[in-house]
Amino acid sequence: MQHFNHNEHPHRRYNPLLDEWILVSPHRAKRPWQGQNETLPEDNRPEHDETCYLCAGNVRANGIKNEDYTNSYVFENDFSALLKDDVLYETKNKSLFQLKPERGINKVVCFSPKHNLTLPEMEVSDIEKVVQTWAEQYIELGNQDFINYVQIFENKGSVMGCSNPHPHGQIWAQSSLPTQVEKTQKNLRAYYDKNKTSLLKDYLDQELKSGDRVVIENNHFAVVVPFWATWPYETMIISKRHFGSIIAMSKEETTAFAEMIKAITVKYDNLFNTSFPYSSGIHQTPTDRVSHPEWHFHMHFYPPLLRSATVKKFMVGYEMLGEAQRDISPEQSAKILRELPNQHYKTKNQ
Amino acid sequence: MQHFNHNEHPHRRYNPLLDEWILVSPHRAKRPWQGQNETLPEDNRPEHDETCYLCAGNVRANGIKNEDYTNSYVFENDFSALLKDDVLYETKNKSLFQLKPERGINKVVCFSPKHNLTLPEMEVSDIEKVVQTWAEQYIELGNQDFINYVQIFENKGSVMGCSNPHPHGQIWAQSSLPTQVEKTQKNLRAYYDKNKTSLLKDYLDQELKSGDRVVIENNHFAVVVPFWATWPYETMIISKRHFGSIIAMSKEETTAFAEMIKAITVKYDNLFNTSFPYSSGIHQTPTDRVSHPEWHFHMHFYPPLLRSATVKKFMVGYEMLGEAQRDISPEQSAKILRELPNQHYKTKNQ
Ligand SMILES: O=P(O)(O)O[C@H]1O[C@H](CO)[C@@H](O)[C@H](O)[C@H]1O
Ligand SMILES: O=P(O)(O)O[C@H]1O[C@H](CO)[C@@H](O)[C@H](O)[C@H]1O
Repeated sequence: MQHFNHNEHPHRRYNPLLDEWILVSPHRAKRPWQGQNETLPEDNRPEHDETCYLCAGNVRANGIKNEDYTNSYVFENDFSALLKDDVLYETKNKSLFQLKPERGINKVVCFSPKHNLTLPEMEVSDIEKVVQTWAEQYIELGNQDFINYVQIFENKGSVMGCSNPHPHGQIWAQSSLPTQVEKTQKNLRAYYDKNKTSLLKDYLDQELKSGDRVVIENNHFAVVVPFWATWPYETMIISKRHFGSIIAMSKEETTAFAEMIKAITVKYDNLFNTSFPYSSGIHQTPTDRVSHPEWHFHMHFYPPLLRSATVKKFMVGYEMLGEAQRDISPEQSAKILRELPNQHYKTKNQ
Repeated sequence: MQHFNHNEHPHRRYNPLLDEWILVSPHRAKRPWQGQNETLPEDNRPEHDETCYLCAGNVRANGIKNEDYTNSYVFENDFSALLKDDVLYETKNKSLFQLKPERGINKVVCFSPKHNLTLPEMEVSDIEKVVQTWAEQYIELGNQDFINYVQIFENKGSVMGCSNPHPHGQIWAQSSLPTQVEKTQKNLRAYYDKNKTSLLKDYLDQELKSGDRVVIENNHFAVVVPFWATWPYETMIISKRHFGSIIAMSKEETTAFAEMIKAITVKYDNLFNTSFPYSSGIHQTPTDRVSHPEWHFHMHFYPPLLRSATVKKFMVGYEMLGEAQRDISPEQSAKILRELPNQHYKTKNQ
């Protein structure tokens, strides 16, 4: 009988944040691909696009004119999935048909007035301004009495459902804790209650010791491919210090966080020499006015690409009905990302 | 204050199978779509394709020649994600780095020798033969001592990661219960222990009484858009009788099940006059030699399309980080599907 090798043999790994297992089939990356190829979005956009409803000074669908903004710019989503209005609702106690109205606020955050400037191509100091905007929004939204959680995220690339290439993210703030956040909180909490330490602090300490899945780090943050990553090049930015939310960050930590956002997104672009698509987002303390010593600030990156700029991983049949499945080991992905240059491929020969 | 209306106001619904909430934003379908359009796969395939490794009599990548099969045809996946071999592994007790080797068998099930014949276009009697094949495989695989669960599924359409348009499904059989199945079992079990009845039987009885989310039914099965559906046109085929697995079906139930598979896939094709993509799969009793009175046979259909044959719902940023979100109410979807013709659009004028 062969000895188990995690870069060769099928196995399952446990995700302690979600209390879920995932399937790893590291040998499977070798199979040929005859399936769908994505179309590459154009990558020669102008700095300003007259027809873009996110560019500075342009008019949006609802007739409102964007400010002539110079850094980041925030406005309420014209097609919000959540609405502020309270509605009258009588709860019926039916265990198999449970429903409750949900209130919230959706915002759009433009990262820069430049229509063609994505996060990896921005200056760290400008990414810092985006982080500050997120912090301001976290406070402003979280202060509203009906908002208990603020989800900050970005969908980058048309393959990730992004409908406007102007670099921007979104914020969905709402009354309830969304499913994934609630699960994470439950598991962080159970760990904290048992060990009186932060799960992610303990996890990161061990990752930094082994180094196997660390992609890059600075004094305050590290980027790792989680031991339990599902997407081929999934990563997490984790703070080295144990704090719960974006507003607990020092000035120095803010800069360090912006640096890590730039570093990982540059590596992503360099992986396939393309503007690398992903969904990313911050998980942090709810704004529900309850003490949350269990929370530990982190940012997830879920990128879909697997083999090339046009071949993604499909999380379909088995993954939807059974469990998430990956085709290379997290250690292999971390090594590939770690060894990529830290300078953006477009600026390499400048 | 307005009275709550589930076709207008944002709300959350509870999925009792997964113990998860989902977000419904029924008003949001109105927003314009400027994002990615899918390319339609060709729909004029020949009955036999010389270059297809699934067609009868052709040679596969590994040099093996397919039989000259006439109904359905099963073989072991040439690029299996799971392997049969046992490996030597020493469990280390690290709570944040849990891993275990996993064994299994992956198979491919061709539905018909005809390269261009999808389930909705097949005769019910031929779909019955596919169902029989699934039952045989469930027994054969489940009988192996290291197989505790048999996942039968289909990825249809290139947008669902299907790499060969020859109509086929897959079977992944394995030692562990996959995450989604384990969750489902846990919730079915808790309900059964408390009520001594099947959760899905009680659910279906109430659905049939209200009719709001029923798409189609016959004597033995019904197709509903679940109250907690996440995909826009997600459905479930649920057996009216409480039984756990495919091998408990009578001859009459097998025919009735095949009829429902045909009926829902015809409606799907008729929705946008296209060969409608989806991932589907059966959830049923594990083969772990333990009594499972809680299990209730059902088949999930997860189709990605939202607005047209080329515009899908993107389950991205908020959905990955927060929770699944849908843009029309399940009742609206059910009504649309219910009112579609029962005859396939391609055969309408014959
Ligand atoms: O097995 P296939 O058809 O090559 O691959 C497809 O289905 C699998 C099972 O859902 C997925 O893991 C793959 O990502 C998908 O492309
Ligand atoms: O809000 P957008 O960019 O129009 O839409 C995109 O992001 C949303 C939040 O993840 C998703 O619900 C949509 O499916 C996706 O297309």
